[in-house]
Amino acid sequence: MRLLFVGDVVGRSGRNAISDILPGLISDYALDLVVVNGENAAGGFGITEEICQDFLDAGADVVTTGNHAWDQREALVFIERQPQLLRPANYPPGTPGRGATVAIARNGARVLVVNVMGRVYMDALDDPFAAADRELQACPLGDMADAVVVDMHAEATSEKQAMGHYLDGRASLVVGTHTHVPTADHQILDGGTAYLSDAGMTGDYDSVLGMEKDEPVNRFLRKIPTARFQPALGEPTLCGVAVEVSDSTGLAEAIGPVRIGGRLSEALPTFW
Amino acid sequence: MRLLFVGDVVGRSGRNAISDILPGLISDYALDLVVVNGENAAGGFGITEEICQDFLDAGADVVTTGNHAWDQREALVFIERQPQLLRPANYPPGTPGRGATVAIARNGARVLVVNVMGRVYMDALDDPFAAADRELQACPLGDMADAVVVDMHAEATSEKQAMGHYLDGRASLVVGTHTHVPTADHQILDGGTAYLSDAGMTGDYDSVLGMEKDEPVNRFLRKIPTARFQPALGEPTLCGVAVEVSDSTGLAEAIGPVRIGGRLSEALPTFW
Amino acid sequence: MRLLFVGDVVGRSGRNAISDILPGLISDYALDLVVVNGENAAGGFGITEEICQDFLDAGADVVTTGNHAWDQREALVFIERQPQLLRPANYPPGTPGRGATVAIARNGARVLVVNVMGRVYMDALDDPFAAADRELQACPLGDMADAVVVDMHAEATSEKQAMGHYLDGRASLVVGTHTHVPTADHQILDGGTAYLSDAGMTGDYDSVLGMEKDEPVNRFLRKIPTARFQPALGEPTLCGVAVEVSDSTGLAEAIGPVRIGGRLSEALPTFW
Amino acid sequence: MRLLFVGDVVGRSGRNAISDILPGLISDYALDLVVVNGENAAGGFGITEEICQDFLDAGADVVTTGNHAWDQREALVFIERQPQLLRPANYPPGTPGRGATVAIARNGARVLVVNVMGRVYMDALDDPFAAADRELQACPLGDMADAVVVDMHAEATSEKQAMGHYLDGRASLVVGTHTHVPTADHQILDGGTAYLSDAGMTGDYDSVLGMEKDEPVNRFLRKIPTARFQPALGEPTLCGVAVEVSDSTGLAEAIGPVRIGGRLSEALPTFW
Ligand SMILES: [Fe+2]
Ligand SMILES: [Fe+2]
Ligand SMILES: [Fe+2]
Ligand SMILES: [Fe+2]
Ligand SMILES: [Fe+2]
Ligand SMILES: [Fe+2]
Ligand SMILES: [Fe+2]
Ligand SMILES: [Fe+2]
Repeated sequence: MRLLFVGDVVGRSGRNAISDILPGLISDYALDLVVVNGENAAGGFGITEEICQDFLDAGADVVTTGNHAWDQREALVFIERQPQLLRPANYPPGTPGRGATVAIARNGARVLVVNVMGRVYMDALDDPFAAADRELQACPLGDMADAVVVDMHAEATSEKQAMGHYLDGRASLVVGTHTHVPTADHQILDGGTAYLSDAGMTGDYDSVLGMEKDEPVNRFLRKIPTARFQPALGEPTLCGVAVEVSDSTGLAEAIGPVRIGGRLSEALPTFW
Repeated sequence: MRLLFVGDVVGRSGRNAISDILPGLISDYALDLVVVNGENAAGGFGITEEICQDFLDAGADVVTTGNHAWDQREALVFIERQPQLLRPANYPPGTPGRGATVAIARNGARVLVVNVMGRVYMDALDDPFAAADRELQACPLGDMADAVVVDMHAEATSEKQAMGHYLDGRASLVVGTHTHVPTADHQILDGGTAYLSDAGMTGDYDSVLGMEKDEPVNRFLRKIPTARFQPALGEPTLCGVAVEVSDSTGLAEAIGPVRIGGRLSEALPTFW
Repeated sequence: MRLLFVGDVVGRSGRNAISDILPGLISDYALDLVVVNGENAAGGFGITEEICQDFLDAGADVVTTGNHAWDQREALVFIERQPQLLRPANYPPGTPGRGATVAIARNGARVLVVNVMGRVYMDALDDPFAAADRELQACPLGDMADAVVVDMHAEATSEKQAMGHYLDGRASLVVGTHTHVPTADHQILDGGTAYLSDAGMTGDYDSVLGMEKDEPVNRFLRKIPTARFQPALGEPTLCGVAVEVSDSTGLAEAIGPVRIGGRLSEALPTFW
Repeated sequence: MRLLFVGDVVGRSGRNAISDILPGLISDYALDLVVVNGENAAGGFGITEEICQDFLDAGADVVTTGNHAWDQREALVFIERQPQLLRPANYPPGTPGRGATVAIARNGARVLVVNVMGRVYMDALDDPFAAADRELQACPLGDMADAVVVDMHAEATSEKQAMGHYLDGRASLVVGTHTHVPTADHQILDGGTAYLSDAGMTGDYDSVLGMEKDEPVNRFLRKIPTARFQPALGEPTLCGVAVEVSDSTGLAEAIGPVRIGGRLSEALPTFW
């Protein structure tokens, strides 16, 4: 089975990358399932119902989020009627929406997608390790799930790597999001789980985290805001990671980076 | 001019990568200057005089550090007699050692190397932007320096990218360290500065940050230490970044990742 | 019923305050129950079985802790056989010891004592609000408990005040610890719960947090450690808070600060 | 000389305390100089020119601020024409306004007032210790200043206590602000400097930090904002600290808390 995970989509530039590039990838490479992190899709802050639907229309099967999940207040409402949109599973009980879902891939496989959020240098949610554990026990790989994808939305590489090792052998892919920079440490861990610390941002890399760079630089220099953050509108790079999942075990057979367009070096999996 | 920057060397495994791989790289590819971040070289924590000398013997021209600079207390003393060892320039006035130096490359070029440390999610040192500015004004590219390398030791990608843009056109390379994970966002910024958010760790990637993984995972799960952190001793990956610097302008002509050995995907610059 | 809560005891100076002052207070003022936070009792870091026993011998009924609970490794073992020693209740399931206990006061009343730890600027434990809620529902005031004392070990005043309001009407006393500075905001909240943001430290106030002041000041100035932290050994102040609890409702009738000895202004409740 | 320092004024409730109570205090007790921290005066966020003028009209000689200094954007402009309004001195060079001023007290004394901001758990400004040192060297106590007041706006008690010890003998008063809770650790340090970790908030203490309590409690429980923060509008407590300064040495002869009105226990200095 062929999976694609696409990192944090930022603003219109990032959304254009999804609508322009994703459908072709799905058809050209016969992708079975696509997950897109959309937490910054709406002007850099959150996601609207319309944008979420656009992503699904472009071929995304599941949309994940993170600390920006609720920046667009409507998300608190429409997430309840949109089972393909996830928010981190380790929000407190009673939080609208869900943190995990089972999607049916184009090849018919049942793919559990889990979204959790780290706590190092981030808000103090419930334990993401316990939350991931709970979701994976409720729908185990090789039993009720044919593949498992975990989006570990987190700042610290230590916490992401620890999550990878903790879930090794129980997930097809553990991939980080949130730093908006793709990492090059993709590997298959000893237990068979594909791992990448960060999928990177989908947006304009002539920026700071996808946002027009002048104001962020100004804030570091002057320590006083002088303007709002605005998404950078230059040519986007679609950033993500591809995994070949064993149809028999649900574990990873291959992992490779995907970087298309914009300023970053082009990358396509050799196994595509 | 051909530069190589090697990311945080962790423990014996990482040190072996330096002694086994670096000399061959220098001779095979005629590298003009090599900078190595050595802040985790001594068992994961700091650097000793002997290890620093080993790095220089293996061909490093300058050794940079970061928040772990002083973990080995002897560094406070020997750094005074070792001008090729840097600590972040934005430590308070009076701190032993120096945060910048001019090294003479094998081609005779004068290369200013600057080490600064970010403040987001890190200790509150002096302003790294002001410190970098000061060093670059004291020894400007194209005037007193033929090339300029800045090691921005920092956690947050936002702060690293902001530093890249702030120094764009004034440095040959701005490269991040500290997260121990190589990023894949190498590019040449509009002003001609090569940029990479993190060079990655030189050490064993079957680990958490280069340390044996059981105890870090345990601490995330249990919140109680049960053992000391120990460097992982598996096969190392040498991680870094190569830059081709214009002999006329000192700006970057090409940038590419270097990953050799161990568990990560191999990478050598196409321009080598 | 007459309660006394004593804040973080630091080092030998603080321990002397307990042994010298506490027994007299108990007999002079007919205190029914005494809780002591002992997380810094052993040289500033953690608590040993012997010290814990000394506190109990001096008249403490329950000893609470916080982020320093495990600094003395033996605490992980002896806490299992010492039901009067608490660690924060919001450590993960499986943590040694317990986060709440019911003590029988000298007047025969059943007093639920709960220890929780905040998460703002502190380690990411489980939700302290949910943990406190769980403990209070398992042993409700006016039902299974005649009085309830909650030690909210936390840094941020916002989180402490929020805990006070959250538990208002369900606890006799919500008192903060951890900042090592007594606050003067004691009041009875609208629901009848006595509240104080921080009980303060029991130790030498010619110090930084009870530790000899030179090294802490040095670290702020130089950003490099030059020595270990040592408890300050000057004359101690016993700091705490007294509450008069209604025998019928278990709610607070009066609250007042207690400061005895050392450099701080003397305070004894007017209702003693 | 008789000084009064009043802690963070929050919203209309806090402003009413200033206009209703301060003028009477000044006349009744012949106060020579009054400093008011006004960083939360405008709806909890920042200060306007009109409010600043109201404070001066009510008798304040100097108004200090902190991390909320610029919440009202007009402050960036009017601070330039209002020398009695301070922002932390350790903002970067080029920041509008000033971090220190010399006010002439009612008794004719020259009082240096310095505003600095801590960095622990706060934004990474320049070194507050170095900044305070610079200001005090430029206008030393006993030489160009007859009294020195330092507002150390900071979260961590450790950093505030360290500042007190660092400036001991060089200031008449080092007082903390920012936590919005008055502390009870007032003392005169060995070198003669009066010290208090936090002056407390001037506003409604049936609140979280002076803001209506429901939304702050909700955010701790739910981790999702559901409303804006609004200042609590109940009866205010004016919170501050009084110092008797020696006319000959400029050092402190006495220090005592001031708490008037509202829910907190009343306090007036015995030496008034
Ligand atoms: Fe994001
Ligand atoms: Fe994020
Ligand atoms: Fe490192
Ligand atoms: Fe580091
Ligand atoms: Fe503590
Ligand atoms: Fe403590
Ligand atoms: Fe404030
Ligand atoms: Fe503040």
